[in-house]
Amino acid sequence: MGEHADRTSPTAKPTMSAVEVVRGGVVESRHLVNVAVCDESGEVVACAGDPRGMTYYRSAAKPFQALPLVEEGVVERLGLSAAELALCCASHEGEPEHVAAARSILAKAGVGEELLACGPHPPFSVTAARAMAHAGEEPRRIHNNCSGKHAGMLALAVVMGWDPAGYHRADHPVQRRMRSEIRRWSGVPDDAIASGVDGCGVVCFAVPLHRMAASFARFGASPESGPRAVVSAMTAHPFMVGGSGRACTDVMRVSEGRAFVKLGAEGVYGGGLPARGLGFAIKVADGGRRAVEVALVRTLEELGVLGASDLAALAAHARPELRNTRDEVVGEVRPAFSLGDLPAMAR
Amino acid sequence: MGEHADRTSPTAKPTMSAVEVVRGGVVESRHLVNVAVCDESGEVVACAGDPRGMTYYRSAAKPFQALPLVEEGVVERLGLSAAELALCCASHEGEPEHVAAARSILAKAGVGEELLACGPHPPFSVTAARAMAHAGEEPRRIHNNCSGKHAGMLALAVVMGWDPAGYHRADHPVQRRMRSEIRRWSGVPDDAIASGVDGCGVVCFAVPLHRMAASFARFGASPESGPRAVVSAMTAHPFMVGGSGRACTDVMRVSEGRAFVKLGAEGVYGGGLPARGLGFAIKVADGGRRAVEVALVRTLEELGVLGASDLAALAAHARPELRNTRDEVVGEVRPAFSLGDLPAMAR
Repeated sequence: MGEHADRTSPTAKPTMSAVEVVRGGVVESRHLVNVAVCDESGEVVACAGDPRGMTYYRSAAKPFQALPLVEEGVVERLGLSAAELALCCASHEGEPEHVAAARSILAKAGVGEELLACGPHPPFSVTAARAMAHAGEEPRRIHNNCSGKHAGMLALAVVMGWDPAGYHRADHPVQRRMRSEIRRWSGVPDDAIASGVDGCGVVCFAVPLHRMAASFARFGASPESGPRAVVSAMTAHPFMVGGSGRACTDVMRVSEGRAFVKLGAEGVYGGGLPARGLGFAIKVADGGRRAVEVALVRTLEELGVLGASDLAALAAHARPELRNTRDEVVGEVRPAFSLGDLPAMAR
Repeated sequence: MGEHADRTSPTAKPTMSAVEVVRGGVVESRHLVNVAVCDESGEVVACAGDPRGMTYYRSAAKPFQALPLVEEGVVERLGLSAAELALCCASHEGEPEHVAAARSILAKAGVGEELLACGPHPPFSVTAARAMAHAGEEPRRIHNNCSGKHAGMLALAVVMGWDPAGYHRADHPVQRRMRSEIRRWSGVPDDAIASGVDGCGVVCFAVPLHRMAASFARFGASPESGPRAVVSAMTAHPFMVGGSGRACTDVMRVSEGRAFVKLGAEGVYGGGLPARGLGFAIKVADGGRRAVEVALVRTLEELGVLGASDLAALAAHARPELRNTRDEVVGEVRPAFSLGDLPAMAR
């Protein structure tokens, strides 16, 4: 795959592409958006903006980070359910089902919550956060939106016989394995993968955007049982990958297996269309969260994944209203881009 | 002033300018930034990015919106203090001093809190919001960061003999007066001022960015007693204009009257350097809040308003650290622009 990855189309030109924030009929703010759509060979078959900028996967790496749980037999040996595997791919809302599944993974691995390296934060779910506050309960590491991934990493360490201590650090075997998965699927050589520390404390990885797209294409279309298990866990249990009101969850529900998608912090989305051998990666240049779901839905619409009734069901993500403190609608967020360079694709 | 405003320099060229978000040595996200610096004539004397885009003032309009309180004798007749006038220019943190001052304005005007048109939200101050939550107190309209402006608008209506009902609507005499102030100081004709509904429910106004800069230049350098009273209230009571940890407050404390500055939502800052007859306006193109304080400090540094010790005192605004849920420093936000086209200025 490493060789194929260099054959990206030199004809794909960056074009102005944006998500616009409109108030009173005036574009008040504008988020530049970069999109790359690649096939399994690494060819850019469609794009918007600049498809080549170095981009951290952030949490969009989670499907790749969950893969060793299948391939190393952790799922089988510990008896992890498909829903629990989906939670390992999640940036979850901290709803009771998510927290219970994270605790179940830890229990099956025989490790305590105190070993989680992610920092505590209140559940993203406003309902769950309020319920905790009313009960006088403090946010714990298990409520971190990445706790499923961390529980999975701990389970991997246990089954592989590695000391779980420091599993989040770059030099630990767990993180070296994660890095090798990024290399394997993106085709980017080790010395060209950039890394930093993620919001939850583990290593995060950056590659050119089109390589990220290619990694999702290959992962989704792979005939191997490992990636197939991860993708089917995500599409069969979309609630576990996000939660109530989340675009990952809603898009996978609506698309019924045609797409698997994953949000990343700083305006990232990655995903694949397994049956078509395509992958995509989206980066809102400024990292703005409010633009990335809009860009996701537009991208899937352009790729023909979503029809009119799907788009209607996803309206809150596709073109969200802006409301003020009086709960008046004062504007909207709307897509202002199309994908270009699609000559070889049936639209 | 309307005639002067057309003489903006045609030689000011847009240049790439940004605030960068860095993680692991890689620029993860990039906020494009537009800055215009104008003199009283409306000439663009320095700029970065595009100085001409239509831009909503949002809360950066508050100094102009407070002016009628002085000019119509509301301050004098109701005995409003300079600190209370400063609060009318504020996007405040909802700290006890702010809430008390807003209540004092309403009491002096003889109107109740229930007449405030702004919607409720918890105080921006985490400390104040926690204290309310612990006391079981629900957020009220008085805690809205714009409650000082709204209290001032109600006071204006009372003194002018206008029915306060609907004072936030575009066709009410209060809002027609606000619009006339934008026209007066920006020099933009009425039919070229765009308007929408702000987060707090009142009318908000948009003009080209350089016209906004010119409005601050003229306001700050005006010899008239009205603008002088507003500017000196802001610079003498910077805490009332923002609050603990806020850039408006910290910059005005440090600059000791050399500059008055005001934040607006969606990545806006406006301000003036009264002794030099200059005004500036900043717009983060995507509206990103985390970039606007960085852009403000860089702009004031470039204009020679802030020296080395001032910049050290403002480090948390100038180049903020990024911390993760483990409270580790994982990156930073940094300025990546300079002002261009400054031939006529002593730096």
